[in-house]
Amino acid sequence: ERNYKISVIPGDGIGKEVMPEGVRVLERAAGLYGFTLDQTWHDFANCDYYARHGQMMPDDWKAQIGDPHAIFFGAVGWPDTVPDHISLWQSILQFRREYDQYINLRPVRLMPGVPCPLAGREPGDIDFWVVRENTEGEYSSVGGKMFPGTPREIVMQETVMTRHGTERVLRYAFDLARTRERRHVTSATKSNGIAISMPWWDERVEEMAAHYPDVTHDKYHIDILCAQFVMNPDRFDVVVASNLFGDILSDLGPACTGTIGVAPSANINPERTTPSLFEPVHGSAPDIAGKGIANPIGQIWSAAMMLEHLGEPDAAAAIMRAVETVLAEPGLRTRDLKGSADTEQCGRAVAEAL
Amino acid sequence: ERNYKISVIPGDGIGKEVMPEGVRVLERAAGLYGFTLDQTWHDFANCDYYARHGQMMPDDWKAQIGDPHAIFFGAVGWPDTVPDHISLWQSILQFRREYDQYINLRPVRLMPGVPCPLAGREPGDIDFWVVRENTEGEYSSVGGKMFPGTPREIVMQETVMTRHGTERVLRYAFDLARTRERRHVTSATKSNGIAISMPWWDERVEEMAAHYPDVTHDKYHIDILCAQFVMNPDRFDVVVASNLFGDILSDLGPACTGTIGVAPSANINPERTTPSLFEPVHGSAPDIAGKGIANPIGQIWSAAMMLEHLGEPDAAAAIMRAVETVLAEPGLRTRDLKGSADTEQCGRAVAEAL
Ligand SMILES: CC(C)[C@H](C(=O)O)[C@@H](O)C(=O)O
Ligand SMILES: CC(C)[C@H](C(=O)O)[C@@H](O)C(=O)O
Repeated sequence: ERNYKISVIPGDGIGKEVMPEGVRVLERAAGLYGFTLDQTWHDFANCDYYARHGQMMPDDWKAQIGDPHAIFFGAVGWPDTVPDHISLWQSILQFRREYDQYINLRPVRLMPGVPCPLAGREPGDIDFWVVRENTEGEYSSVGGKMFPGTPREIVMQETVMTRHGTERVLRYAFDLARTRERRHVTSATKSNGIAISMPWWDERVEEMAAHYPDVTHDKYHIDILCAQFVMNPDRFDVVVASNLFGDILSDLGPACTGTIGVAPSANINPERTTPSLFEPVHGSAPDIAGKGIANPIGQIWSAAMMLEHLGEPDAAAAIMRAVETVLAEPGLRTRDLKGSADTEQCGRAVAEAL
Repeated sequence: ERNYKISVIPGDGIGKEVMPEGVRVLERAAGLYGFTLDQTWHDFANCDYYARHGQMMPDDWKAQIGDPHAIFFGAVGWPDTVPDHISLWQSILQFRREYDQYINLRPVRLMPGVPCPLAGREPGDIDFWVVRENTEGEYSSVGGKMFPGTPREIVMQETVMTRHGTERVLRYAFDLARTRERRHVTSATKSNGIAISMPWWDERVEEMAAHYPDVTHDKYHIDILCAQFVMNPDRFDVVVASNLFGDILSDLGPACTGTIGVAPSANINPERTTPSLFEPVHGSAPDIAGKGIANPIGQIWSAAMMLEHLGEPDAAAAIMRAVETVLAEPGLRTRDLKGSADTEQCGRAVAEAL
């Protein structure tokens, strides 16, 4: 019996609106592909919860989530109520760390029906992955202030990288490249400016690359790499980066393909000792929340990545085909893509196209 | 008598080829606008020097440079001979710090004749400045390793920001915004992930903004900001950022306008207690060096920024008009821009168009 326990956490804003569409498509895929879903919805990791309890999650959140096969996440954040650095550190960033979801994986892919801001690019031209270290590095609360509040004030902010944490993300990237036609890894660095951690990162890349003679690799400094994403996005296959650089590249990449509103983000523990988490790249979008017009494709594409992770590649591929069909049809896609559908109509259309 | 002492440092690779064209245009502008130039050329801060002396610059480089009004710099780096982190730290990064050139200023502007990789943008649509902190922050050699070479290895890399260093770059950005029509400052942050330094940066921005009621401001996290450079580059006026974020944005911006090969970079000490330095954004380009085909416009545009700084705005504006004339003419621009001119022909054309 292929039964999957899924924790569903809609979060804030449009997270609450797109989640039902993600689940709708998941359920339809389950019916068609012969697996079952055992969902538990959680009403925490959202800012309403914070307003009631003074924290984003209950103390026993881990016990409440239990041991699901995966977490299906919407979006979190409501800056009017809770500052982002609290709502995010106490939810998505906490999941990534405490569940050791050390891979953040995001596709950069041109999609039919999604206008590309770059001139002269067609679906098929751009298709690569950004593999981001997801637990350590520049995202750190280590550091402090000297002479606070005085003109002499100095702020120290520590980036912390470990060999363990660096090697495993590099290994994942090289392994991923092996499954691809071009078998190429690009490393994001800044060893010409950041003098301790990044030269060391470069050494780890060389060391790992030596174990993969069948995979080619190169490196770019993050400034030029960002420029290359705009100028030559077709040159990339698998891009591997530290937490901050990966954060930047995995937003910039989808921006270059126009897919930032529909791209998914997988937070993966590859050893499967803890649940992995799947979420759209977009945030809670307070400006359009509550109107029923949010684009559910990011949540649905996240569902496809989740099924891939759970070992249902056929269902995952079918969802992606259905997504492409719907995106190509102005009457079925949402207004942000110059379509006319609302959130629910778009979600239903994908479920039907399955 | 308007006489300007200029230190000329060509550096490596195409730096040596574009510098004579930059100087040619400067001399022509001097003749036309009635000032004189007193040039001293320096054969250090290049990798040949390193090969001979084991260091990039003589110990008494400051004495040799003396007290010029400005430094006109080409490009440095020859990775086959000297690793970048040595050649750059011992040259351009050292100048920035020891001369306290705490502002890095770069234009992001669509130019006629320069194809824009973004769809549907015309000259005039995109025109903003990136103001980058140029001496501290993430560019740091503070930090170290614990358990080096073992599986337990931990690397600590310190970002160091000071109130002094942060306030002065913010002040410069707000002052610059005041000279512009839209009077708007955008701050690059990542306070939702980098937990000590960036929330503190945000506070400094708010504090500074309070002194400029006539200037509007907003902030974006660096990931979204990079995405916005691609999606909505017309929305920016003055963008202010830390050293690393500014490095990224001031390459990404020119990439979005297609001008990365022709954009200038000013490293400024606004108090003029030390010389400021003007250089093209492009590097030494070992792949095309020695062929006489490098595009000299970056060096020439840097000359215009230098003249602006020296108090010759008319000459600076005339150079920019001449640059635009030449860029619009395929026979006068270089091959990287689908033209047919070589480096010298292009440089001469700008001098003549003056
Ligand atoms: C919301 C924010 C903390 C988060 C990050 O920076 O990791 C987001 O940008 C992302 O990429 O998932
Ligand atoms: C070469 C490198 C050290 C330098 C930097 O990162 O500052 C360059 O990218 C620049 O922007 O001038």
